[in-house]
Amino acid sequence: MTNPNNTATVTVLGLGEMGRALATALARAGHPTTVWNRSPGKADALVGLGATEAATASDAVTASDLVIACLLDAASVHQVLDPVVDRLAGRTLVNVTTTTPEQAGEIAAWADAHGVTYLDGGIMAVPSMIGGPGSSILYSGSSDAFDRYRPLLDLWGESTYFGADPGLASLYDLALLAGMYVMFAGFLHGAAMVAGAGVSATEFAERAAPWLAAMTGGLAGYAAVVDGGDYTVPGQQSLEFSDLGDMVAASAAQGISTEVVDMVQRLIRRQIDAGHGKEGFARIFESIKQPA
Amino acid sequence: MTNPNNTATVTVLGLGEMGRALATALARAGHPTTVWNRSPGKADALVGLGATEAATASDAVTASDLVIACLLDAASVHQVLDPVVDRLAGRTLVNVTTTTPEQAGEIAAWADAHGVTYLDGGIMAVPSMIGGPGSSILYSGSSDAFDRYRPLLDLWGESTYFGADPGLASLYDLALLAGMYVMFAGFLHGAAMVAGAGVSATEFAERAAPWLAAMTGGLAGYAAVVDGGDYTVPGQQSLEFSDLGDMVAASAAQGISTEVVDMVQRLIRRQIDAGHGKEGFARIFESIKQPA
Ligand SMILES: NC(=O)c1ccc[n+]([C@@H]2O[C@H](COP(=O)([O-])OP(=O)(O)OC[C@H]3O[C@@H](n4cnc5c(N)ncnc54)[C@H](OP(=O)(O)O)[C@@H]3O)[C@@H](O)[C@H]2O)c1
Ligand SMILES: NC(=O)c1ccc[n+]([C@@H]2O[C@H](COP(=O)([O-])OP(=O)(O)OC[C@H]3O[C@@H](n4cnc5c(N)ncnc54)[C@H](OP(=O)(O)O)[C@@H]3O)[C@@H](O)[C@H]2O)c1
Repeated sequence: MTNPNNTATVTVLGLGEMGRALATALARAGHPTTVWNRSPGKADALVGLGATEAATASDAVTASDLVIACLLDAASVHQVLDPVVDRLAGRTLVNVTTTTPEQAGEIAAWADAHGVTYLDGGIMAVPSMIGGPGSSILYSGSSDAFDRYRPLLDLWGESTYFGADPGLASLYDLALLAGMYVMFAGFLHGAAMVAGAGVSATEFAERAAPWLAAMTGGLAGYAAVVDGGDYTVPGQQSLEFSDLGDMVAASAAQGISTEVVDMVQRLIRRQIDAGHGKEGFARIFESIKQPA
Repeated sequence: MTNPNNTATVTVLGLGEMGRALATALARAGHPTTVWNRSPGKADALVGLGATEAATASDAVTASDLVIACLLDAASVHQVLDPVVDRLAGRTLVNVTTTTPEQAGEIAAWADAHGVTYLDGGIMAVPSMIGGPGSSILYSGSSDAFDRYRPLLDLWGESTYFGADPGLASLYDLALLAGMYVMFAGFLHGAAMVAGAGVSATEFAERAAPWLAAMTGGLAGYAAVVDGGDYTVPGQQSLEFSDLGDMVAASAAQGISTEVVDMVQRLIRRQIDAGHGKEGFARIFESIKQPA
């Protein structure tokens, strides 16, 4: 079904797991959708939904005013788009390929030099979440492009615009992923600690998952202290109290690696050694801001 | 108000922040409660609730069949209880002082040698949470003591018994705290990444807290893979895909320490270097189980 809001023509380059999910949401919503993938055979289901498969990247780019790139990495974006950059001129490129902030800046400058309006996106979802609850996509770069195509972008999930610096969305994306991967490592460390006592990882997860979710309730408090810049505000857990010596020793006693908890302990100890032991735990932010 | 279930006499040794919270819950529920603290002046509010302040630890111990120790550490438990151990004989000691599993085992053996029934506890709450939602206390050691005093212990929060090994509750406690501290470090690393682009920690927390809470939904899946022991089960994100090279580079480009994300990257790389790059991310559990 096509409705008046869904008439923007759109092209999706890259039909991997994520590209297919993005293109499916667009085709389902009634947008005239053109798709292209380097290797054949990935477009069949999309064609079934009414999408058009382009034979070449060049054909795909010329079919729409809005071009979405969902490729492997920054290098593959250049491999696909450099040869067709003259056809991209005057159009809008929304690049949701995962890149570093520097790579996003480089691609934005390249786009700008060729008359291409550029919006960078970072997808905070797995393909099965696209278009459903919990899917969130971060954007930075051209605010015009974000405003114009927002109804279309919202089909994928909650869209947030961070600013004109094209690298901001990537930086935010990587910062959120850093939190996630580090949390996963902390969980698996805990699971390894109790494994020696015969506790399964599944049993540990039943308790650890709600516990960690509840503990995210403390993050805003740490953030307020960091932003206030005063780690002596009363009511905080001190760095001395947070010393993880027992945790490191108990991990070593289980015969497992201590490197996960050693990392936090080093951040704590650097602040204690610098004379800040009575100040709040959030001060480890300063250990991170200032490389040792 | 005293009701038939709340007639057990109980003594609380140690009236720091946590000891006061525990004793308050007991006195409020109508238990005849005796309290003692090394330094004076901490019992006033409790006496107002009907508790009795003992002049000496010896008097405190003899006042009740059930003795709760909530002191600083294992050493302070011995400092307080060694001189009165003959009066402790025949009673039940519930020690909720934070200790290592080894220390819990040592105190349990000491209690056993002196005819004291011993239950070890690990408190997963801050003092303000005691008796309210979200407070959880982990126990191991004497199952008789746990069963007999469970209604009283439940006044503090959800009580879980893990087994006869007195060190189990401490080990579980430390494992959950490891997950929490590591998650906090990951969050503060993310905040430091975006700080250079002018994003406040508070703004970052508004997005990161719900994001991390949502991502705890993935822990049961990783746990199932760990327990299954087969990291090749289809549908997992591979270790190669998880490579954090971009995240480390973006952190370095912001001029911040990379040690938080380096920790995860080392766990990932050890598995990739051992030839497991196509297997699932949960395999970093093996990096933790086997010290490098
Ligand atoms: N999957 C997720 O959970 C997820 C989440 C957030 C962000 N992302 C990001 O989304 C992007 C795509 O991920 P995906 O999951 O769809 O990956 P994928 O399933 O591995 O697909 C990769 C896509 O890139 C194409 N490609 C790779 N190198 C190419 C080249 N040199 N020239 C042309 N095409 C090339 C592939 O084409 P062929 O079919 O020809 O190989 C395929 O279409 C990545 O940047 C990823 O980081 C993914
Ligand atoms: N607070 C929390 O959020 C929390 C959470 C979970 C577990 N815990 C655990 O609960 C226990 C108590 O914590 P807390 O917050 O109540 O600590 P706290 O406020 O610092 O109180 C420490 C208590 O231990 C006593 N103490 C210390 N050394 C002693 C010694 N040598 N002899 C006799 N008494 C001694 C102190 O007596 P004085 O008043 O005479 O110094 C005070 O009563 C700790 O093991 C802690 O890890 C606390």
